[in-house]
Amino acid sequence: MPFNLSLAEREGAGLKRTLPVIERVDGRRLYVDGEQYLNFAGNDYLGLSRAPELLAAAEQAARHYGVGAVASPLVVGHQAIHRELEAELCDWLGLEAVMLFSSGFSANQAVIKALLGKEHSLWQDRLNHASLQEAGLLSPARMVRFGHNDMNALEAKLKPAAGLIVSEGVFSMDGDTAPWPELVRLARVSNNWLMIDDAHGLGVLGREGRGTLNEQGLAPNSVNIFMGTFGKALGVSGAFVGGSRALVEYLHNFGRSYIYSTHLPPPQAAAVLAGVRLVRQADDRRAHLRDLVARFRAGVAGLPLQLLPSATAIQPLVVGEETATLKLADALKQQGLWTGAIRPPTVPKGSARLRITLSAAHTRADVQRLIDALHSAL
Amino acid sequence: MPFNLSLAEREGAGLKRTLPVIERVDGRRLYVDGEQYLNFAGNDYLGLSRAPELLAAAEQAARHYGVGAVASPLVVGHQAIHRELEAELCDWLGLEAVMLFSSGFSANQAVIKALLGKEHSLWQDRLNHASLQEAGLLSPARMVRFGHNDMNALEAKLKPAAGLIVSEGVFSMDGDTAPWPELVRLARVSNNWLMIDDAHGLGVLGREGRGTLNEQGLAPNSVNIFMGTFGKALGVSGAFVGGSRALVEYLHNFGRSYIYSTHLPPPQAAAVLAGVRLVRQADDRRAHLRDLVARFRAGVAGLPLQLLPSATAIQPLVVGEETATLKLADALKQQGLWTGAIRPPTVPKGSARLRITLSAAHTRADVQRLIDALHSAL
Ligand SMILES: Cc1ncc(COP(=O)(O)O)c(C=O)c1O
Ligand SMILES: Cc1ncc(COP(=O)(O)O)c(C=O)c1O
Repeated sequence: MPFNLSLAEREGAGLKRTLPVIERVDGRRLYVDGEQYLNFAGNDYLGLSRAPELLAAAEQAARHYGVGAVASPLVVGHQAIHRELEAELCDWLGLEAVMLFSSGFSANQAVIKALLGKEHSLWQDRLNHASLQEAGLLSPARMVRFGHNDMNALEAKLKPAAGLIVSEGVFSMDGDTAPWPELVRLARVSNNWLMIDDAHGLGVLGREGRGTLNEQGLAPNSVNIFMGTFGKALGVSGAFVGGSRALVEYLHNFGRSYIYSTHLPPPQAAAVLAGVRLVRQADDRRAHLRDLVARFRAGVAGLPLQLLPSATAIQPLVVGEETATLKLADALKQQGLWTGAIRPPTVPKGSARLRITLSAAHTRADVQRLIDALHSAL
Repeated sequence: MPFNLSLAEREGAGLKRTLPVIERVDGRRLYVDGEQYLNFAGNDYLGLSRAPELLAAAEQAARHYGVGAVASPLVVGHQAIHRELEAELCDWLGLEAVMLFSSGFSANQAVIKALLGKEHSLWQDRLNHASLQEAGLLSPARMVRFGHNDMNALEAKLKPAAGLIVSEGVFSMDGDTAPWPELVRLARVSNNWLMIDDAHGLGVLGREGRGTLNEQGLAPNSVNIFMGTFGKALGVSGAFVGGSRALVEYLHNFGRSYIYSTHLPPPQAAAVLAGVRLVRQADDRRAHLRDLVARFRAGVAGLPLQLLPSATAIQPLVVGEETATLKLADALKQQGLWTGAIRPPTVPKGSARLRITLSAAHTRADVQRLIDALHSAL
């Protein structure tokens, strides 16, 4: 056998992953084995995955277009519903052009692979998402990691006009935001390109939910590449990349996971379109979410755990050790609360945590139950 | 500017790609600018993308689960509908375990990246799909290409117990099949692993549409890795990887585009499940498709174009030169027929072609119209 599939090492380290056996996730609730839990582990930050508007849009598109595009975009996959979604995204975010991908993972790969050659550098925040790190590792460019949100470190490592700086709007496992005004400044003075992955900021932050850049007072064209996903606040799945028309046309020609992959199913595009329209008007949902975040942070302030400095829907409680993290998650489960226990290699060694996510679908009482359960568990 | 987005070179070579402006694709028809065309360019080989069973399943799942999984599989994305689909796929194909991906592109990448280190070799048919070639290029393994379906060439290049041989069931741009009994024999005697990408065979070939291996009299466990997609004959989008339980558990732990990506939306999983159930009973559709293929091949036999030896839904007519290919596609469009003009780099230089695809949704009269139009255009 040329391959060794043993997981013994992972098992020995308590890091083997197995799929949890979940019946279904229904807005703020989650069902397992006939038991019902409050769900604090997903990314449905605005509770849109069950919004009637999204369901109706998907049903209508399925009847009009069918359940799949059943072709790649450049052949015959790209249809009116895809163009409508692209136009709405451009309008919402002030982008010149966008293109759709079936996942954020492949969007990140397509961009980095298509743009960067071995003569380029790719500067990445150390805590950037696995899809970005992976794309960087697979690209021939020189990958340079800088300390999390450490702009001095980045500045020291920059070379003029040599490549791309990538960071996240909201960091997926920490919930904090990157200092975008400073990133924009550094990119400008060094004459490098700048890319934001705003998977977790979009819909949650900014006017009309336009994301982290808007929240920080920046225009969308402060970055060269704007990447966002549809599988978090927008409630569905898939992703987009936006920027100048020249960028998008270039990626139509050289983005391999775009060109050589079946296009986003029309019902999914339609649901996302309905989601964007809802998100733009969802100031009430965002205000409710902010209220829950403030309550949660006040409620757990006294706990003997590190609460990371986050004003977003992602509220991680760092436990440190892996087995202690699993134990705490189990204790919460006993009390009917489901949280994500995140361990290395997803997060750095020694920083295992509960990745608690709040959603506009939660009530104040839900959050109070979580706070109480944490106090009684610790 | 560190990046040059010029497409001048592509444009100069007549190879610039632009998205066609299609209104929608409706079973066998395609609408552009108020005009209606017969569609011979998609991958909806059994016409399932508009089957009422798939639409109903998607609608029901959206109401029960929501329109998105809104979490990665290992967090809380993987739900009962995903397990039901996995179980149906295992039962259908005789596989011990499978896992779901949001695209075939990312499935191929996850597998090759997770399994192969720099000590390994990856033997690939020269005509393997871009997603496999790309995965090979990005992997640290030694990539060895062998001539299309040339088993002697492969045998000469094999090293014992050193890696993975990958080929396709049905080649996406040629429509022919690989000689799987011989691939199985070579993998066994050389003690290497074997992987099939059966994107275009699944549903179309074999008993119950089980694909190319079944058509060629082989058990599914003749290969170590069985990859198939949901965006062709199954009418939807997404993909799976199957094999031993050990393989799938390994990929749950090391398949990065699986672990770090939002899970397949429940309505999509439900539509695929309904699709598999239909496909298993679709002998009538497959017989009709075979009849159309035979009629098409007989009808174009006298044309001054190379018709590739294909018994599948993919019936490419090789023109050779790029502009001549575009001209022929345009002439067919004038007559209300839409075909895919496929040019380099998707196919080797000098082999530009019309990739004509037939579907069980077509009628005999549709195919006759295509034959007549080809005769009058040439
Ligand atoms: C920051 C970030 N980028 C990209 C992705 C990948 O997006 P997708 O889930 O659509 O593959 C994720 C999460 O899944 C993410 O958290
Ligand atoms: C042979 C083959 N493998 C893989 C893929 C990629 O699958 P997906 O479209 O689901 O990304 C395709 C086509 O798109 C294909 O033709």
